[in-house]
Amino acid sequence: KDASQEKAKSANISDPYANEPERHPSLIVRSKQPFTAEPPLELLAESMITPTDLFYKRHHLPVPRIDLDTYKVEVNTSLHQDKKPKHELSLSLDDIKHKYPKHTVMAAIQCAGNRRDEMTAIKPVKGGKWDAGAISNATWSGALLSDVLAALPDIEILKKNMHNLHIEFVGLDQDPASATKYGASIPLEMALDPKNQVMLAYEMNGEQITLDHGFPIRAVVPGVVGARNVKWLCQINITGKESDSHWQQNDYKGFNPNVDWDTVDFSKSPAIQELPVNSVICVPPPGTKITTDDKEVEVKGYAWSGGGRGIVRVDVSGDGGKTWSEAELQTPDQPRNHVYGWTLWKAKVKVDASSGDAVELVCKAVDSSYNCQPESVSPIWNLRGVLNNAWHRVHINIA
Amino acid sequence: KDASQEKAKSANISDPYANEPERHPSLIVRSKQPFTAEPPLELLAESMITPTDLFYKRHHLPVPRIDLDTYKVEVNTSLHQDKKPKHELSLSLDDIKHKYPKHTVMAAIQCAGNRRDEMTAIKPVKGGKWDAGAISNATWSGALLSDVLAALPDIEILKKNMHNLHIEFVGLDQDPASATKYGASIPLEMALDPKNQVMLAYEMNGEQITLDHGFPIRAVVPGVVGARNVKWLCQINITGKESDSHWQQNDYKGFNPNVDWDTVDFSKSPAIQELPVNSVICVPPPGTKITTDDKEVEVKGYAWSGGGRGIVRVDVSGDGGKTWSEAELQTPDQPRNHVYGWTLWKAKVKVDASSGDAVELVCKAVDSSYNCQPESVSPIWNLRGVLNNAWHRVHINIA
Ligand SMILES: [Mo]
Ligand SMILES: [Mo]
Repeated sequence: KDASQEKAKSANISDPYANEPERHPSLIVRSKQPFTAEPPLELLAESMITPTDLFYKRHHLPVPRIDLDTYKVEVNTSLHQDKKPKHELSLSLDDIKHKYPKHTVMAAIQCAGNRRDEMTAIKPVKGGKWDAGAISNATWSGALLSDVLAALPDIEILKKNMHNLHIEFVGLDQDPASATKYGASIPLEMALDPKNQVMLAYEMNGEQITLDHGFPIRAVVPGVVGARNVKWLCQINITGKESDSHWQQNDYKGFNPNVDWDTVDFSKSPAIQELPVNSVICVPPPGTKITTDDKEVEVKGYAWSGGGRGIVRVDVSGDGGKTWSEAELQTPDQPRNHVYGWTLWKAKVKVDASSGDAVELVCKAVDSSYNCQPESVSPIWNLRGVLNNAWHRVHINIA
Repeated sequence: KDASQEKAKSANISDPYANEPERHPSLIVRSKQPFTAEPPLELLAESMITPTDLFYKRHHLPVPRIDLDTYKVEVNTSLHQDKKPKHELSLSLDDIKHKYPKHTVMAAIQCAGNRRDEMTAIKPVKGGKWDAGAISNATWSGALLSDVLAALPDIEILKKNMHNLHIEFVGLDQDPASATKYGASIPLEMALDPKNQVMLAYEMNGEQITLDHGFPIRAVVPGVVGARNVKWLCQINITGKESDSHWQQNDYKGFNPNVDWDTVDFSKSPAIQELPVNSVICVPPPGTKITTDDKEVEVKGYAWSGGGRGIVRVDVSGDGGKTWSEAELQTPDQPRNHVYGWTLWKAKVKVDASSGDAVELVCKAVDSSYNCQPESVSPIWNLRGVLNNAWHRVHINIA
C-alpha cells in the first residue's frame, strides 16, 4: 500500500492536472485540460443566484495546489520604472478575513468568449467552444481592495496618480512548462473607489469559496470581464503599466471583422474590461416543438451589462424581430451605476404557428446608458470570437 | 422717438421671444420659437472644438432676460418629503467665480433627438427635426458642483444617502403661459464625485458663456444628455426624487418600437442620462458625385459615447457594411472613463465605382466598454425619435 501511495504521489507530482476537484455532472464540459465548462441554459435561468457547483468554469491553466500554512497574498508597488518593486504587505487568509471589514456584493461574471459558437458558425475563430452559458451570478464576500490599499504608506501618491496606474492580479495557477503564472490587470482608479466593490473574496454564495472558483482568495471585479477576476490570488502589483501577461496583452481584445491573424496588431486594441450589454434566451431550447394551436410561448432568459449598468428593458420577439414586446424583469436591488448582478426575465411571446414550420424567438436588452445589442453577429465577428452580444435567436419548430 | 422706444419696450414686454440673441447665419434653423438649430456637418467635422457660434442650440422655451445685479443661483435641500425645502446658499456669478477653484473640462453635449430625421423616415415621431448636427464639442470652465456641495452643513447626510437623492437644476427660461421654468435632474452620486466634473460653468471655449448657451451659468454634466445640462441656471435642489418637470418625467425616455402614443407609459422607462455610443459621417455629404476612376473616398466624422466612455475604434465601410477598415482617430487626452470630449476621425475608404450608380458609405464606433452601434434604425425606433445610434449611412453617386 505504501508503495502504491508513493507511486500515486510521484505520478501526481509529475501530473500538473492531478489537483482538479470533482465537478457537477450537469456541467457541459468544453475542455478537460485546462478545465472549462458551462451549465445547461435551462438550469441557468432557474435561479437569480447560480448554485456554486453549476457556476461556469473557465480555467486557463491547471488548478494549483494550495498550502494554507504558507499561503499569502503579497502587495507590491513599482511606481517608478527604474526602481525595484517595493514589497508592501503580505497577507494570510486570516489577515484578509480579520483585518478588514467584510463586504458582500452580488455580481455576475461573464467570459469574454460567451456565445462564441454563434461566431464560429459564421467563420472559424481561435478559441474554445462556448454556447451562451459562460456567465453566472453569485454573491461574493471578502475585503474591499480599497480598504487594503488605504493602509499603504504610499496611498496618497497612488491616489494622485491613479489615472496612470494599474493593479495586476497574479494567480497561483501556472503553465506546467514555463512556470508562468496567470496574470491580468485593471486600472487602479477602479480599485480605489469603494463603490466599485473590487474585492478579495473568500466567500461565494455565503460559503467558503471552492477550489474551482479560486480558493482561498479570488479577485472579484464587479462589472468587468471574467479574465480580470483572478482566481487563487497570490500577488497584487501596483504598476505604471498594464499586466505583461499574454491574457492582458495578446488575448482578450476586440477587432473588426476584417482583421485576420496575418494583419492583427494586438497593441492597437484596448484590453477588454467592462463588457457590452447582452441578453440570452435560456428557455425554450432550440428545436422545441409547439403545435399549430399554440398562440404564445413562455420564454425565459438572462440579461447583463458591464460597468454596473443595470438592465432597463428586455424586448422579445416571436417573429424574428419584426415586432417586439417587453419582458418582465427580475432585477437586483443595487444602486444605479453599481448594478453588478444580472437580470432574469420572462415573457409570454405571441407566435403565429399557423404558417410555416418554424418560429424565430429573439431577445435584445437595453442598459441604463441606453446602449443596445446589435442585430447580427457578422459585423461584430472577430478573430478571437469574443464580445458576442448580438440579438440572441432561438428557432423552435411547429409540429 | 421717445414714443417709439416706449412702444418697442412695451412690445418687448409682451413678446416672450424679444430677448433672442443674434445667431450665426451658417446655422441650419430647425425651429424659431423656441430656437433650435444645428451646424452643417461639414463645418462640425472641421475642428475638435466647435466654435461657440456654431455650437448647436436646443432651447425648450424663450431665452430669458438676465439681470446680473439680482442674479443668484440658489441651493436648496429637501431631504425629507414631509419637511419644507431648506434654503442653503445663494450664489451670485461673482461668488461662483471667486469662492471656488476654477476647473476646465472638454465635453461634447448631444441632444437625445440627434439623428431624429432617420427615425422619421421610417415612421413619424413626435419631435423637432434634427439631422446629425445636434451635438457639438466645447471646453467648459467653472466651479465644480462637488466643491459647492462640500461646503453644505448637510454634506455628510448627502453622502450617506447619495444613492437615493437627486440634484434638480432649474433654469430661468419659463413657459410664457404657465410661467413653469425648465427643470431636469441627475442622480446626486454623479455630482458628488469630482472626477465626473459636473460643473457650474461660466466660460465656454475660454470666453464668458454666451446668452444662447446659458449665460451667466450653465450646469454642465459631462457624459450626460443635453437636456440635463440646464442653461440660465437659477436653482439647484437636492431632493429625494427626480425632477417633476415634463422634460424629466414625460419626455426624454426610450421605448421599444411597438410602443405607441396609445400604449406608452412614461413612468415605466428611466429618464435618459448617459447616451449610447454613436458615430456619424460628416464628409462627404449625401449625393456627392465621384467618377468611375475613383478608387477611394476621403471620409470624416465624429464619434462619441456617454458616461465618459472613450471611443476605441471607428469602422468604416465603402460597400454598405460588407467589409470594414479602421478610421484614424483624433481622441481627447482625458483619463479612462472620463473621456467626455468627442473623437474626430477620418479614413480613406475603398470604393468600387466600376459597377452600379451609387456607393453606400457606413460608419460604426466602439467605445471603451466595447459597446457598439446597432445596424439599422427600425429596431430602435421609438415614438419620441430619441436615442438613434444606428450605423450612419451616406449614399454617394457615381457620375
Ligand atoms: Mo474569459
Ligand atoms: Mo435634447
